[in-house]
Amino acid sequence: MPLKEKPLLQRIRRAATRYRPGIGLGIGDDCAVLRLPRGHEALVTTDFSLEGVHFRRDWHPADAIGHRCLTRGLSDIAAMGGIPQAAFLSLALPADLPQKWVDQFISGLLKLADRYSVLLAGGDTAQSPGGIMADIVVLGSVPAGQAILRSGAKPGDLIYVTGNLGSLQEALTQLRSGKHLRPKSHLKHFYPEPRIAIGQFLREKKLASAMIDISDGLSTDLAHICEESGMGAVLYADALASIAETRSEQRLVSGHDFSRADTRSTQTRTLAPEHETALSDALHGGDEYELVFTASPNRRIPDRIAGIPITRVGEIVRGKNIKLVTKGKSKFLKPAGWEHFG
Amino acid sequence: MPLKEKPLLQRIRRAATRYRPGIGLGIGDDCAVLRLPRGHEALVTTDFSLEGVHFRRDWHPADAIGHRCLTRGLSDIAAMGGIPQAAFLSLALPADLPQKWVDQFISGLLKLADRYSVLLAGGDTAQSPGGIMADIVVLGSVPAGQAILRSGAKPGDLIYVTGNLGSLQEALTQLRSGKHLRPKSHLKHFYPEPRIAIGQFLREKKLASAMIDISDGLSTDLAHICEESGMGAVLYADALASIAETRSEQRLVSGHDFSRADTRSTQTRTLAPEHETALSDALHGGDEYELVFTASPNRRIPDRIAGIPITRVGEIVRGKNIKLVTKGKSKFLKPAGWEHFG
Repeated sequence: MPLKEKPLLQRIRRAATRYRPGIGLGIGDDCAVLRLPRGHEALVTTDFSLEGVHFRRDWHPADAIGHRCLTRGLSDIAAMGGIPQAAFLSLALPADLPQKWVDQFISGLLKLADRYSVLLAGGDTAQSPGGIMADIVVLGSVPAGQAILRSGAKPGDLIYVTGNLGSLQEALTQLRSGKHLRPKSHLKHFYPEPRIAIGQFLREKKLASAMIDISDGLSTDLAHICEESGMGAVLYADALASIAETRSEQRLVSGHDFSRADTRSTQTRTLAPEHETALSDALHGGDEYELVFTASPNRRIPDRIAGIPITRVGEIVRGKNIKLVTKGKSKFLKPAGWEHFG
Repeated sequence: MPLKEKPLLQRIRRAATRYRPGIGLGIGDDCAVLRLPRGHEALVTTDFSLEGVHFRRDWHPADAIGHRCLTRGLSDIAAMGGIPQAAFLSLALPADLPQKWVDQFISGLLKLADRYSVLLAGGDTAQSPGGIMADIVVLGSVPAGQAILRSGAKPGDLIYVTGNLGSLQEALTQLRSGKHLRPKSHLKHFYPEPRIAIGQFLREKKLASAMIDISDGLSTDLAHICEESGMGAVLYADALASIAETRSEQRLVSGHDFSRADTRSTQTRTLAPEHETALSDALHGGDEYELVFTASPNRRIPDRIAGIPITRVGEIVRGKNIKLVTKGKSKFLKPAGWEHFG
């Protein structure tokens, strides 16, 4: 049922009903009632955000956790080329959690919801026996028959990735070593942006044959496309290195630990071990919320969509395996599943 | 995202995709894609089922917990007069939970889903730091503008309840006293049936002006109708007693603890304290999944709908309060919220 009239969630209700009163009844009945655009199908996705697995209270500010919680759902809508419509939040909270934490969590979530005109339309609350557990459901829509599936990749299709990959691993490495990170200097880790506009552009222009978001790492998520399409794939190491290398540049730009970053940025281009790490991060690092999609070689894919660079990183082939090609030599690539912070 | 290809949920995926392949893609993409009937609005409801709060492993068999988990969502769809279409299950499970428990949980849930042609279309899984936590989302539909809301009650409308109330309190009292109950003898507690058919009948015949399900107890849930409609209500104690008294008869019929039940059943009709308890159970007992609805006095409400007795228990009046009328005397009734097993 929608958010109950418990003190904790009365504020959410007040905050949430500000949003898009036109599209539905929102909170306050047994169900939320939502009218989808005429001729659209419904998209539904549901994702847990669990303390100790997807976030840590000592690493992440509450508003960033709220933001990331909703990004998980919005990123799935983006991966179908969909339009997000409404979100439903189920929250299990420890009894001793400060009210301020909840307020900031909701604030971070609503700020992102507002930016994509998503109505917070319901949810549930309960006391958690362990840590904080949030389950986010996002309802979206897409013109009937036009959702971009995982299963549409064809032999010869080219493989593209949005943005950069692997840059989040640096933030994680530092967090794991006990370093405190300023969210403003690591926006992509603390406030990842779902690629909604890119997904919709690809769907409207009928450019992509298959798509998925990279929440579990490129090697794992590309394997899902291959599996559902009954295909194999070839990835080019040099193309991946080119979007992985920006990792060091980002660190440079961020101003964090400036002098050492500068040195390492140069090293990344010359030292093989650094290269290896960057490539591995790009292949297997998760928590990215970038998109990987395939497109027929007949389609012209722009260099940038909605301001984000699009990079060709491989192609779809017949077969069952994913191969990584480095300087003409190819080796089999095993999907190395992303394990979050657990 | 839909159920991931983790070993635990591969079986769910195989089991789930048997259901209604026509209405959607189901499991296996970033989102489930679902086509709602033409001219329908979407209904969405989300409900936690938490170990120690909504169920106990030592009281409830796993398949009953799966059944009850889905009933919570279906009952919300019923309360809007809706047609359930698809369910999404997010499960956080302790690492040491036996596989058999999960299998039986899913089996109980799918059996109920099958009976109402509901597709299990997605979900998420995670390891729980505490007990078992399930979050069920049900997507339903209703012809546009025809959802039965909480806000439609008018002065003079009559108040009706489906089935019997308070009978579950007996099961709870026994469970709390450490008694083992056979599920077959207490079907309504272990396998409550959502009133889907009644909700749809009332909506199709345009009989109900407002409706809610009684998951939190009649006094609490009727108060929600009053609040959303800006109305007060009067309840008749004798009418409530008539549907509460079947509590003892049910016990008699069930064959459980037959001799004592027989004696008590007679006593219920003569002793005032027993009457008081039965009335209190009917007013405040939760976990019922019956419906309470209001209807204009001009509408003829059948004595039974889909085989379930319908009883008039009061009427809507101007004002803000709910009053209980006993032998011509009325007193104010405070909503006494249902606290589950916590």
